[in-house]
Amino acid sequence: MKDLKRTTVIGLGLLGGSITLSVLRSFPGTKVTGYTHRASTRKKARQLLPGTEIVDDIEQSVADADLVILATPIRAFEETIRQIRYALPTGCIVTDVGSTKLWPHRWATRLLPWNVPYVGSHPIAGSEQRGVEFARDDLFDGAMCILTKNRSTHLKAVETLRQFWLQLGCFVKLMTPSKHDITFANISHLPHVVASALINANDSETLKFAGKGFIDTSRIASGPANIWADILLTNSKNTAKGIDKIIAELLKIKKAVVTGNEKQTEKLLEMARARRAELIKYKIKEKELRS
Amino acid sequence: MKDLKRTTVIGLGLLGGSITLSVLRSFPGTKVTGYTHRASTRKKARQLLPGTEIVDDIEQSVADADLVILATPIRAFEETIRQIRYALPTGCIVTDVGSTKLWPHRWATRLLPWNVPYVGSHPIAGSEQRGVEFARDDLFDGAMCILTKNRSTHLKAVETLRQFWLQLGCFVKLMTPSKHDITFANISHLPHVVASALINANDSETLKFAGKGFIDTSRIASGPANIWADILLTNSKNTAKGIDKIIAELLKIKKAVVTGNEKQTEKLLEMARARRAELIKYKIKEKELRS
Repeated sequence: MKDLKRTTVIGLGLLGGSITLSVLRSFPGTKVTGYTHRASTRKKARQLLPGTEIVDDIEQSVADADLVILATPIRAFEETIRQIRYALPTGCIVTDVGSTKLWPHRWATRLLPWNVPYVGSHPIAGSEQRGVEFARDDLFDGAMCILTKNRSTHLKAVETLRQFWLQLGCFVKLMTPSKHDITFANISHLPHVVASALINANDSETLKFAGKGFIDTSRIASGPANIWADILLTNSKNTAKGIDKIIAELLKIKKAVVTGNEKQTEKLLEMARARRAELIKYKIKEKELRS
Repeated sequence: MKDLKRTTVIGLGLLGGSITLSVLRSFPGTKVTGYTHRASTRKKARQLLPGTEIVDDIEQSVADADLVILATPIRAFEETIRQIRYALPTGCIVTDVGSTKLWPHRWATRLLPWNVPYVGSHPIAGSEQRGVEFARDDLFDGAMCILTKNRSTHLKAVETLRQFWLQLGCFVKLMTPSKHDITFANISHLPHVVASALINANDSETLKFAGKGFIDTSRIASGPANIWADILLTNSKNTAKGIDKIIAELLKIKKAVVTGNEKQTEKLLEMARARRAELIKYKIKEKELRS
């Protein structure tokens, strides 16, 4: 990563802001440029992201970048790529930090010049908070980052990005965009859908009796609706399949309960309990969780 | 509560053990007797619950009690009441700490002598941990405790129990057992079902990619399967209705997503986000959560 002279981050929310702070911390000597389309956010970013050069023109923001990172909501990627594509220097790598990867790969393949390689990134970091005011220079410490590549992806660019995220503190895994979108529909998008459905199924009077269990189970439903709508809509088939799987599991439990089948009810709950225990053990072994 | 000379706790797991420790802390001078059917647990309890007199005979355990608290899994209540009913002193109050209340009320009405009043208790405390080794004398500090009563419930006994739980640090609400079971099917039993279904819908390979969102959403599924099976089976109709409501909400989101309806997808997620924000605000106002 000695060649990283200038990184440009487009979109300065929690993720984008945290990337600029992390790059400044992890790559001394590297310059960081930030752009975001709202003037008011640029103003805030100038106060909250010291060391980052915030510019008012999107083409200017990428003019001498080695690496451009798209950190806007996914639905803005296509238009953003259209706006910057003729301003990107030859050999500059483009990536994004969106939570779905098939559509970003399609847009990049369709729109970017041949001499600007694209690799998908999905750092599993962030929270239900949003906005540059929550940006932190350690958001990626210990986080998983999935890089996505297909057959036409430039391998040297993959290696460069791998080094980049490692330096930011991530551990990095490689996947095809298609495998990524199936996996994350099930493990990430579905919990969001389920948490939202759980809240929507209850009236305000009942919600008052929510205990710690309900509050934890529903936590991720506090994430920004527009960003999550983007995620679900750019991964709609896998999300729909996942919802069908959940419904099938819910109906199994319902059947066991209404028929008074003690053995089957306990078996289904015990299966979940045991598999979660195994998951937690795995996460502790991998040092993703503390024991 | 000057009259509380001896409290008996039957069932010495996390809840039962925590009650004995809390009573000893909150009612100086009161004697506490504990009984649990496994000899090995009684042995552990003798080490872990100093000050509690652990006895080997269930009838002896209640012989001079003013208050008897059932803290076994719900499915053991009926048999336990049968075992103690002729040994209970006149005027002794019986309660339980089960998470469903219609069945305990039925068993108590059917089996207890007329001069032994019963009131249902449901302290909303505990965790996915189990066993007397996790017992704490502050488990009930700040917890909600629902007392359940119907038309035939002895009002003085309700007042005595209200004072009892207040003294243990709870805030107390009154409800009919029927209202209780509907409310908690939706706010407590359903999250458990949903968390279990979410885990069961995923294979081990996918689970490895679980992030903080999935881990929080599924946390309560780590609760003991036998206790939760009891809860669902003694509240089966309300649980089934709740599952149907969740499925209806899941299908709304699925429809919005597969038809590419951005507005509706965002609207459903935003509804959940806003209602959870309102819930958190309420919980902070009520001092159940810290801001």
